Amino acid sequence: MGVYVIGTGHTKFGKLKDKDLYQLIVDAGKEALEDSGIEAKEIGAIFVANYDAGGFNNQGHLGPIALEIHPDLRFKPTTKLESACASGSAAILAAMNAIEAGKIDFALVIGVEKMTALDTPGVARVLATGSHWPTEGSKGMTFPGLFAEYAKGYKAHYGFSDEELRVMLAKVSAKNHKNALENPLAQLPLDITYQDILNTPDEKNPIIAEPLRLYDCSLISDGAAALVLTNRENAEKLKDKLVEITAMECATDYLPMSKRPNYEFVAGKVAVKKAYERAGITVNDIDFAEVHDCFTIAEILAYETLGITKDGEGYKALDEGIVYKDGRLPVNLSGGLKAKGHPVGATGVSMGVIATRQLLGNAIGHQLDSPEIGVTFNIGGSAASNYVGVYKRVK
Amino acid sequence: MGVYVIGTGHTKFGKLKDKDLYQLIVDAGKEALEDSGIEAKEIGAIFVANYDAGGFNNQGHLGPIALEIHPDLRFKPTTKLESACASGSAAILAAMNAIEAGKIDFALVIGVEKMTALDTPGVARVLATGSHWPTEGSKGMTFPGLFAEYAKGYKAHYGFSDEELRVMLAKVSAKNHKNALENPLAQLPLDITYQDILNTPDEKNPIIAEPLRLYDCSLISDGAAALVLTNRENAEKLKDKLVEITAMECATDYLPMSKRPNYEFVAGKVAVKKAYERAGITVNDIDFAEVHDCFTIAEILAYETLGITKDGEGYKALDEGIVYKDGRLPVNLSGGLKAKGHPVGATGVSMGVIATRQLLGNAIGHQLDSPEIGVTFNIGGSAASNYVGVYKRVK
Repeated sequence: MGVYVIGTGHTKFGKLKDKDLYQLIVDAGKEALEDSGIEAKEIGAIFVANYDAGGFNNQGHLGPIALEIHPDLRFKPTTKLESACASGSAAILAAMNAIEAGKIDFALVIGVEKMTALDTPGVARVLATGSHWPTEGSKGMTFPGLFAEYAKGYKAHYGFSDEELRVMLAKVSAKNHKNALENPLAQLPLDITYQDILNTPDEKNPIIAEPLRLYDCSLISDGAAALVLTNRENAEKLKDKLVEITAMECATDYLPMSKRPNYEFVAGKVAVKKAYERAGITVNDIDFAEVHDCFTIAEILAYETLGITKDGEGYKALDEGIVYKDGRLPVNLSGGLKAKGHPVGATGVSMGVIATRQLLGNAIGHQLDSPEIGVTFNIGGSAASNYVGVYKRVK
Repeated sequence: MGVYVIGTGHTKFGKLKDKDLYQLIVDAGKEALEDSGIEAKEIGAIFVANYDAGGFNNQGHLGPIALEIHPDLRFKPTTKLESACASGSAAILAAMNAIEAGKIDFALVIGVEKMTALDTPGVARVLATGSHWPTEGSKGMTFPGLFAEYAKGYKAHYGFSDEELRVMLAKVSAKNHKNALENPLAQLPLDITYQDILNTPDEKNPIIAEPLRLYDCSLISDGAAALVLTNRENAEKLKDKLVEITAMECATDYLPMSKRPNYEFVAGKVAVKKAYERAGITVNDIDFAEVHDCFTIAEILAYETLGITKDGEGYKALDEGIVYKDGRLPVNLSGGLKAKGHPVGATGVSMGVIATRQLLGNAIGHQLDSPEIGVTFNIGGSAASNYVGVYKRVK
């Protein structure tokens, strides 16, 4: 039992003018297949993760498009998984299940989104369908607005001042932009401090949804990432170093934010508990994490969700240096959604690629000294969908 | 091993003015849960099948919406599967894998589509994203046009006359409309003969895409269907009569129709071979089939795909009475997509519900005498995605 990553692919993230949706799928898939060392004909099924290429690119039904990666993929089973911005993790889980059920030996998982085909309001419009449309999207609520509700709720619940909140959010942003300096595939690396962000004039760091500003928001991105997965027996035959997906757990909460607390990811905590239990770990065993910083407040909440700090003390993870690249538990070494980029359907798969290469010693960017366990925390919508993955180097 | 259906739910199909997307999910899910005899808290994960509620209803991210079925579903894992009009079968397969992997004991699968929120051109526009947009949808090609290519290609390849083609298509249409007379959930039951259709004046049976006419096209529908699945051990504890999903196999072909034959479902045949092999059956073992008659030509091709007749002889299945309700292998006793209705994301799950109830002796509509094996053939797009299910009564 157990599922192992034997191949990874990851395109540049950004506004990729010369890469359409179709090419992104092919590029990431081909790289992962080549990295795996297996032949295309050995793939048992293909799982595509995507939020809404129908809305962004007029193209649904992406499964069959993945056949273009290699002629020997013709007739393979394909499908698409969607859990908003957690689609990538949903596809990994579906692929794991197919392998663990003994249905297939090798799975190809591809996450993709081509968002820059639309302008920013158009993107916001498509993404808003990931909220509860009757009570949120249709009223003009967008995702910056929903995460602003978290920022306000968090501040009120724990009694932070405006300034305290603004500082902790700026620290997340600066850390991630800076981490991205070492990631050649990142969209927006910036050599910037949190003081720089706080001192940025309003016209260059405007409020998007009070209290969130431009520097608090993740990016509109094109990109794709891919994984080849298999069982232990095959992985051992093919690779010297093994990375296991020891857990991929999901917990879902009600879609309307009005039906959930606005100061914590309550279902996220359920997913974390399940994942740690399945993997037999505690937060102290984790060497690094890639978390869903779609907005800076989400990373603060992620610290608390993962148990890196107590509730209401997420800021300490920054102030005590825990989550920086030289800290005890570096978070978003890749730059995160904030600076690596956030092609929404690709994000969960990208987290898996980042975690795998870090564990193999081939990090995309800053390499830690011999890490053994990495965790991914990938959310969909305003944290209605929550997936937690545990990636482990097992030899 | 093996996966069993222990609960089914199925709403009316049609233009359901008083049922929105959310209510359809709740109605079908609740019915299936109640039918299963298990409590909501026992559900291990929820799999929603949908093509494009983002396009039809501005609502993506449907997984969490299924939590509204019962308070005890909060925090359950959910996701959405999409393989165009084969999304329902994709969701069934994903749920089966989760059970067979031993990850969960009970799965709730819900297929849904609410299409009548848009007008007919709007529906055609959303569905066209299931074609290859760069070479088909963006050029103005719609699904009636794509299946007209099959009708023309089939006629040319086998040398049928216009009249021969028109007669065989009218026979499919009349059979399915008539079968729907016994299905209380069907959208368009009609007591009609194929001669009636042939004699219908052009203004009442206009050409939609030469040679396909209105009577050749399936319906624009709202509706949902649901299944509760589990492993053998649980099924035996809960139910006296058992229906096993003995096989659910998929094969995918290239998305652009220009890259595939236009006179057969070549990947469909691959899926059929795999499904029959896994189930250990031949076509002679099948007691009934529910097939994807999105257009009448697709049902003719389905006869040949399933091996009911040889290639080019699909018409004989009609002329020899094989596929009628009193024939050797009745096809689309429910009325099919043509007359039962075709809420696209629900269709694959609906086929599973129809097959299960028929095998249990509680047919939605015409009940056969003690059938043992039913087959479903569900396609996505212009048959790029192909799923074949084998449902078997095992005691």
